[in-house]
Amino acid sequence: MNEKIEALRERLKNLDLQGMIITNPINIRYLTNINAEGVLLLTRRENVYITDGRYMEIVNQALTVDDEIIVYDFKELTREDYENFFTFCENVGFEENNLTYAQYKEYMHKYKINNFEETEGLIEKFRITKKEEEIDCIKKACLITDNCFEHIKKFIKIGMTEKEIAFEIERYFLTNGADSLAFDTIVASGPNSSMPHAVPTDRKIEDGDPITIDMGCKYNGYCSDMTRTVFAGHIPQYMKPVYDLVLKNQLRVQEELKEGANIKLIAKSVESEFKLNGANMVHSLGHGVGLDIHEFPFMSTKHDFILRENMVVTDEPGIYIPTRFGVRIEDTVLITKYASQNLTLSEKGYVVVGN
Amino acid sequence: MNEKIEALRERLKNLDLQGMIITNPINIRYLTNINAEGVLLLTRRENVYITDGRYMEIVNQALTVDDEIIVYDFKELTREDYENFFTFCENVGFEENNLTYAQYKEYMHKYKINNFEETEGLIEKFRITKKEEEIDCIKKACLITDNCFEHIKKFIKIGMTEKEIAFEIERYFLTNGADSLAFDTIVASGPNSSMPHAVPTDRKIEDGDPITIDMGCKYNGYCSDMTRTVFAGHIPQYMKPVYDLVLKNQLRVQEELKEGANIKLIAKSVESEFKLNGANMVHSLGHGVGLDIHEFPFMSTKHDFILRENMVVTDEPGIYIPTRFGVRIEDTVLITKYASQNLTLSEKGYVVVGN
Repeated sequence: MNEKIEALRERLKNLDLQGMIITNPINIRYLTNINAEGVLLLTRRENVYITDGRYMEIVNQALTVDDEIIVYDFKELTREDYENFFTFCENVGFEENNLTYAQYKEYMHKYKINNFEETEGLIEKFRITKKEEEIDCIKKACLITDNCFEHIKKFIKIGMTEKEIAFEIERYFLTNGADSLAFDTIVASGPNSSMPHAVPTDRKIEDGDPITIDMGCKYNGYCSDMTRTVFAGHIPQYMKPVYDLVLKNQLRVQEELKEGANIKLIAKSVESEFKLNGANMVHSLGHGVGLDIHEFPFMSTKHDFILRENMVVTDEPGIYIPTRFGVRIEDTVLITKYASQNLTLSEKGYVVVGN
Repeated sequence: MNEKIEALRERLKNLDLQGMIITNPINIRYLTNINAEGVLLLTRRENVYITDGRYMEIVNQALTVDDEIIVYDFKELTREDYENFFTFCENVGFEENNLTYAQYKEYMHKYKINNFEETEGLIEKFRITKKEEEIDCIKKACLITDNCFEHIKKFIKIGMTEKEIAFEIERYFLTNGADSLAFDTIVASGPNSSMPHAVPTDRKIEDGDPITIDMGCKYNGYCSDMTRTVFAGHIPQYMKPVYDLVLKNQLRVQEELKEGANIKLIAKSVESEFKLNGANMVHSLGHGVGLDIHEFPFMSTKHDFILRENMVVTDEPGIYIPTRFGVRIEDTVLITKYASQNLTLSEKGYVVVGN
């Protein structure tokens, strides 16, 4: 049987769950490689994927005999079929964050479930530590992102709009091997860079603007995530200390990330150094990256979490001076036993563009 | 007070609901013009919008004094504040299709709700009939779509890939006044056109290909939806009868759409004529269009629904011959008292491109 499903079944046994309904499409992709619309059932006897006719071909391409997953078109299933899936299952797990209340009620009824139990990110927790083939995909997405950065550095000209730059990044990704964007690209110039979640506007790049570019793509479903703040024309002197402080912390975090490190302590030390310099830590220091762009672990100053080998996280400190400007520098980082390895490798010194 | 909220409050009173928690972002945008992340509460005394700091500026720009909506950053709210919102509310409504099971439990607890009641598309039903300013936005989105079709007819060349064409449509929309795409553009050529939900591939356009292009954009949040099947180089004779049959039915439906018409009967008549000619009706005849690309009413052969003035629906019959080719022709249509008015106006005769 499929190894990942086998491990999950072992875990379900320990939780006294005799079955599970999996509705999070990312979790289904993780377990089965299926990228479609449907529901995965682990019943006492079988693994079942229910989809609709449109996806039959894609689903059968994704699966191998070893997966031992029986695929149904929902139109073939009768009321009794649904009721039979979980016979003799006392407790059936479900994904409470990926089922609406309306679906919850519908499923309880349709599958005649005795005791429907929340599973609290059970599969998401399996996903934190990446397998070799997953890391390979993330590396490939990061490589495309680095290449895109090289391209965009030359592309940007003073007078272009943020939207034009964001659009070119998107075009580059989609025509250079990425499946899709990992998230909506941020291109935030001048005062717009002071907003960590800015959306690209029609604002034209001016000489002396900082431009924060936060971008990422997917390769075979796996995400990359990288931010660089570059400067148009020249670097105003007063921006340099802010840039230097962000970069210094980004590099220090990179050194501290490794197996056994506690994220909370690392985040707290950045927060302290920002405060000493009169700045706040507006957003968290980073997050896991995988099939989802934001996944476990979330690197905040509030929760202890010990890193392990083969986790992939971002390292993204940022300082934002309201209405004036901001700087963020971010890499996607692989945790190894004794160190961390940057998967995004674009330069982090001062970069001047548009000349 | 805001008229739409006033109408909703009237309806809640009739349903014996003293409050409501609104979580569907499209419904919140409809009621308030707010386009952000947050939750709208209608309590006994007030209208409250809870968001986070990032959106404060956008939210305050969207609202006027007349809206009478109090805005909070969730960080300012204490446990007691949450518990006080629905004091003296016996029954509070919620949107069961837009709340996960986990949120449902969290809200019950956080707001100390006595009786939390499903509201079954209450606000979605208000949205079926469009107001004048909503129709104006849909018309604008349709105009951009027509202009895009004119552009793309000239752009397509034999040898281009489906992806290149889809990408150009997207670029056109985003640089010609649209907020965003209304949905992922379909460009399905040759045998790919036999799949109603095809995704653009790297397949290159060949001479004699039919190309089904299904596209739409958003203007001020409101969607357009149009499909045309065009031909590359020349039209193979054997495709003409299929094209003619689809077009004949599309035009007939357009004539039948008006206040008082029953969608089910119209859909059934198309199904019958398709069957007489040996074809099946694979997907429904159309759907409502507004802030959502697919919204009430859904035009199927199964459910009676009487059209009223100022509803906006699509008219999109299609015939698909498995593994060979398909034809779909679709307009966005405004229902008026005595007739219907096409809002997408691109030509529907044979269109040959790529020469």
